[in-house]
Amino acid sequence: MNDFGTKYRIGIFGTSHGPCVGAKVEGCPLGSKISEAVIQAELDRRSPGKGPLTTARKERDRLEIVSGIHNGMATGGPIVGLVRNVDADSGAYEVFKRVPRPGHADYPAMVKYGGHHDFRGGGQFSGRMTAALVIAGAIARQVLEKKGVALLAQTVQIGKASIKKELPFSIAEHAVRASAVGCADRDAAALMTKEIVKAHEAQDSVGGIVKCSVIGLPVGVGEPFFASMESVISAMMYSIPGVKGVEFGSGFKCAAMRGSEHNDQYATRGGRIITRTNNAGGILGGLSNGMPVEFRVAFKPTSSIARPQMSVDLVEKKPVELEIKGRHDPCIVPRAVPVVENATACVVLDLMLQGGFI
Amino acid sequence: MNDFGTKYRIGIFGTSHGPCVGAKVEGCPLGSKISEAVIQAELDRRSPGKGPLTTARKERDRLEIVSGIHNGMATGGPIVGLVRNVDADSGAYEVFKRVPRPGHADYPAMVKYGGHHDFRGGGQFSGRMTAALVIAGAIARQVLEKKGVALLAQTVQIGKASIKKELPFSIAEHAVRASAVGCADRDAAALMTKEIVKAHEAQDSVGGIVKCSVIGLPVGVGEPFFASMESVISAMMYSIPGVKGVEFGSGFKCAAMRGSEHNDQYATRGGRIITRTNNAGGILGGLSNGMPVEFRVAFKPTSSIARPQMSVDLVEKKPVELEIKGRHDPCIVPRAVPVVENATACVVLDLMLQGGFI
Amino acid sequence: MNDFGTKYRIGIFGTSHGPCVGAKVEGCPLGSKISEAVIQAELDRRSPGKGPLTTARKERDRLEIVSGIHNGMATGGPIVGLVRNVDADSGAYEVFKRVPRPGHADYPAMVKYGGHHDFRGGGQFSGRMTAALVIAGAIARQVLEKKGVALLAQTVQIGKASIKKELPFSIAEHAVRASAVGCADRDAAALMTKEIVKAHEAQDSVGGIVKCSVIGLPVGVGEPFFASMESVISAMMYSIPGVKGVEFGSGFKCAAMRGSEHNDQYATRGGRIITRTNNAGGILGGLSNGMPVEFRVAFKPTSSIARPQMSVDLVEKKPVELEIKGRHDPCIVPRAVPVVENATACVVLDLMLQGGFI
Amino acid sequence: MNDFGTKYRIGIFGTSHGPCVGAKVEGCPLGSKISEAVIQAELDRRSPGKGPLTTARKERDRLEIVSGIHNGMATGGPIVGLVRNVDADSGAYEVFKRVPRPGHADYPAMVKYGGHHDFRGGGQFSGRMTAALVIAGAIARQVLEKKGVALLAQTVQIGKASIKKELPFSIAEHAVRASAVGCADRDAAALMTKEIVKAHEAQDSVGGIVKCSVIGLPVGVGEPFFASMESVISAMMYSIPGVKGVEFGSGFKCAAMRGSEHNDQYATRGGRIITRTNNAGGILGGLSNGMPVEFRVAFKPTSSIARPQMSVDLVEKKPVELEIKGRHDPCIVPRAVPVVENATACVVLDLMLQGGFI
Repeated sequence: MNDFGTKYRIGIFGTSHGPCVGAKVEGCPLGSKISEAVIQAELDRRSPGKGPLTTARKERDRLEIVSGIHNGMATGGPIVGLVRNVDADSGAYEVFKRVPRPGHADYPAMVKYGGHHDFRGGGQFSGRMTAALVIAGAIARQVLEKKGVALLAQTVQIGKASIKKELPFSIAEHAVRASAVGCADRDAAALMTKEIVKAHEAQDSVGGIVKCSVIGLPVGVGEPFFASMESVISAMMYSIPGVKGVEFGSGFKCAAMRGSEHNDQYATRGGRIITRTNNAGGILGGLSNGMPVEFRVAFKPTSSIARPQMSVDLVEKKPVELEIKGRHDPCIVPRAVPVVENATACVVLDLMLQGGFI
Repeated sequence: MNDFGTKYRIGIFGTSHGPCVGAKVEGCPLGSKISEAVIQAELDRRSPGKGPLTTARKERDRLEIVSGIHNGMATGGPIVGLVRNVDADSGAYEVFKRVPRPGHADYPAMVKYGGHHDFRGGGQFSGRMTAALVIAGAIARQVLEKKGVALLAQTVQIGKASIKKELPFSIAEHAVRASAVGCADRDAAALMTKEIVKAHEAQDSVGGIVKCSVIGLPVGVGEPFFASMESVISAMMYSIPGVKGVEFGSGFKCAAMRGSEHNDQYATRGGRIITRTNNAGGILGGLSNGMPVEFRVAFKPTSSIARPQMSVDLVEKKPVELEIKGRHDPCIVPRAVPVVENATACVVLDLMLQGGFI
Repeated sequence: MNDFGTKYRIGIFGTSHGPCVGAKVEGCPLGSKISEAVIQAELDRRSPGKGPLTTARKERDRLEIVSGIHNGMATGGPIVGLVRNVDADSGAYEVFKRVPRPGHADYPAMVKYGGHHDFRGGGQFSGRMTAALVIAGAIARQVLEKKGVALLAQTVQIGKASIKKELPFSIAEHAVRASAVGCADRDAAALMTKEIVKAHEAQDSVGGIVKCSVIGLPVGVGEPFFASMESVISAMMYSIPGVKGVEFGSGFKCAAMRGSEHNDQYATRGGRIITRTNNAGGILGGLSNGMPVEFRVAFKPTSSIARPQMSVDLVEKKPVELEIKGRHDPCIVPRAVPVVENATACVVLDLMLQGGFI
Repeated sequence: MNDFGTKYRIGIFGTSHGPCVGAKVEGCPLGSKISEAVIQAELDRRSPGKGPLTTARKERDRLEIVSGIHNGMATGGPIVGLVRNVDADSGAYEVFKRVPRPGHADYPAMVKYGGHHDFRGGGQFSGRMTAALVIAGAIARQVLEKKGVALLAQTVQIGKASIKKELPFSIAEHAVRASAVGCADRDAAALMTKEIVKAHEAQDSVGGIVKCSVIGLPVGVGEPFFASMESVISAMMYSIPGVKGVEFGSGFKCAAMRGSEHNDQYATRGGRIITRTNNAGGILGGLSNGMPVEFRVAFKPTSSIARPQMSVDLVEKKPVELEIKGRHDPCIVPRAVPVVENATACVVLDLMLQGGFI
């Protein structure tokens, strides 16, 4: 099913080369002030044309709200927002039904759906579907902000270039939005840009890591076991095309650690309970513990590359060399930053509603 | 909600120190042969007393099926299985309501649920709840096996000791079950055991990584976006207490890779479509591509350690040194192996049922 | 939530006086041939202007499909269809926030949602929302027809005028569509028309009963208990504004019957198992038994009438005489016929998909 | 699926002749006082042996709570309660797989599930499953009572004997519980008893009608369309075996009424908004309007009767005369009264939780 969430429930629809891509959102609290301009601004962040060497396909993602917002406020009914598709050259995709692109969904989608699948532009699997996540998330974040909850995603690695140290949230937020690669650290951003340019020049692509932080959460958001914060956040992150890893707090490093080192010991600060370290990533037993929720999301290098690759002709079952025409982002990470951030907002709002915090 | 899944839907109930821990399972196909002995065997793998230095609490997890299996076959109605709790000393836990244990759910659970929560033994947050996952999974795996799908989880890292190379599935399966640390590689297993013993001697604990493989899957299992294989597997994995990271295929390494290196190029072998590498971890666009599904799960070091730690008295809001009595597993990884394996079976069966494969 | 169904899942959105009314449908089997003309035709049946004395509001319900159908076939992704709202005079509704109309949702909606509710034209409670049910159902019925399942709703009572005897399905189908009151029996239809005209002349309205039959169902559709055919059909029927009663087969008459009279005894006809009578309405234990599924749905008289009625000023809490301006259907039953029929198609398709029949 | 509800979610399990029948309940608010004695008392009301001529099968329905209640309070985790089956003679049922009983689920269940179905005692279709509804409902009603919401079901018709006038709620409540047929009106109760006795003497059975009222509800409980109060209440009612009709307020009578007569006009009483009549059955637009919620549920005559009936041998496909041995309730209505009442409590609590009233 193309639905996600319990109390803030989002459904995405459309395909890359059909009439539109959109989201239907249930459960936005009645009377919430929802600015369409804020949603449009988040869509613009996701749009190509800002980063270095992004795809030349000019998607003018103009938001259209057809249900659920009246006079700038949520009516309590379902909200439906969509962006029309333009500038799509669908012809190019027919061949991939027969000769699947390495790293894309072409082959399993062909087996699963056969010829009836609307395959153009990757269809339902297209990265373009993330515009729907951004719409749903940009609504959610406006509700969260009223409750003092803020989200920040940022690029912390592209190829071999990594961020050295993190800036404080409020400073970083600004810097991330100003950066073409979504990285608050200028020096690292310059190196990351080089990684992308080099990959492009080599007719290749490169991966990276996005880190996301959520601050201002009350203690106790999330539910034990299946609706643990980690479970629902990771499920949402793995919905985003290209994600291969999700880790919270200490993440995979925890495997080599001792308990005495990993346990975040408690202290008080200004009458508030805090932990001295945040290896937990702000989550214990699936519940927020009042510290920033922090997680990292690994994106693989863009699958579409200009270099010839080996594939197979599915009909004749023999090897074929495949060349993918057209321009493609050599790195999706910069455009993934607002997707991670807004998609997370959907999940956090859902859990806060489930827990009765809103 | 304590429910997971769409077509094979599991709900867990009970608490660590209540009358029992159990699972209710919907959607097991009518007429499936379900051996209670197989379920019991998986429960036995999870039980303490086999690994080095496991907890001394003797849980005799005797399976009781009270619904849904008749004459060794699934009736098509809900299956309910449970294990009674015995040997529980609940008194020890009362103090943690006031002085929360670092690394445990005590603090956020206290804020969320207050005094009404059945806190004994970690309550709903207890690792003991994973017995319910094992019950549900051991049912699912029997259905999967009939369809030629097999699962294997194994310990690949404990502390600083890692597996050097992987054995073929069929050999590894046997070796993993024979190993006290759940590791097929004997040399690595010996080093892992040392890591656990050293941690124990230091009144400390240690983390690790479990790798899980699923073989024999048809092409096309999973759904795009929110029910991608990665989304539902990771959501399930993050339900298991102590998990901090989940990665598929190349995982976090993909960030530093180029597309030409990461894309798994297609080839044919014996008329079947395969990929030459498996950086995708057997999943493209959220769908299985016919290669083994492979993922790694990072477990933090056990939170309960004998060493004194700093906590806070929640009433007086001042620092307190906390000593946790009793015996605890210095490493939960060996016992997590059957949990990862069986919990994955639930998810895989659910997706296969959703996709009409069964 | 504004969603219904498990495998064929429909969500409705929009409001009477917002930009549009629409439906999002999940689970339409990939590759199903879906004619937009058929959907449009069902929408036209629901539109005003055909029956005697229907509302003068000219809703030109032109179907727009924005997702999920490509080249006349279901893509397997969500289908989204909508009709734009035109010709809406919203000003008239503001007063009902303060002085609720008897028989309408005004009062409880005002208490529940307060001023933020998009109240115009009845908002989410409007009968206009049933256009969304028709869209979803007209898709479902096309899938059902391919499987030999046909549906027929017809007016059997309006006011004091009732149908005397039922025509065979195939004849009735045609006659119902040709009749302005949705009644296959010409004599009864004439009397029903008189009932409506008389009510209208008296500045009043009148109720009625719609009967729906589903033929061609295989044996075993439905699930025991909560997804019994009766449970899901009645839940859907009671979603339609104005419904006060739903009964299956013998319905309320069963209370005065003896078991020996009520039990439908089995027989064979042409090698098929049939029952001699159909007091069960084609359903036993919640499952279809191969006989026609038959149920009756009672609609109350239209709440909006021209006569002055007593209401209360909610602010001053004192009695007020209320006059409702504008034109309204004196009887909603004729327009409810295609709504009942198509809404039923949604439910039947959902249950057939759940049961693996499609 | 054997689950129902959104926020107060109940799942039933077991079968008539398996180890037990039980319910798993999610969403009972943490800290609610739940008396097991109250649940037991409701189970006792459902038990046979009180009404005239009830079935001789002695089910000692002793409640066992295995999860979710600790020290008389809901822990916030799932509640699981069950009653063991005893005194079951399963052998008698094997024949019905081949020669289905008229009026029972035998035939469609046999087609749907084949031989694997646990058919004994009607299996999942058995009226005995309603014990699970009573468990879930008797928990819910305790939460509702704390909020001032009370429920009362009563027999209003058996065969040709009907109640003449209704007693006030508080008096009726007592009288209903004291009456062997669940009817507060003594004279009517005597006539109803005669109807049952006569039916029994004729080796036959008889149907009836149960009316249920819910008082003390706040205004605005329920959701528009698919979660209208009528939708969810009727869905629950039609889950109860033997129900053929459900109507709210004026019910089927509304068809012959005029709007001026049917609309409940508003008035004030003691500063409260009321309606002068209650044709709406306390529900407008799917939402409670502050008046008592009232509905009627028609039960067919018990399908099992001693008289020989015509059936068909499913293997040989030829007519067979069938005689059903054993003792059966000649009328299920008296035992259905607590089932209707408690099942309704589940639904009302669910909607109140959904609406944020609790």
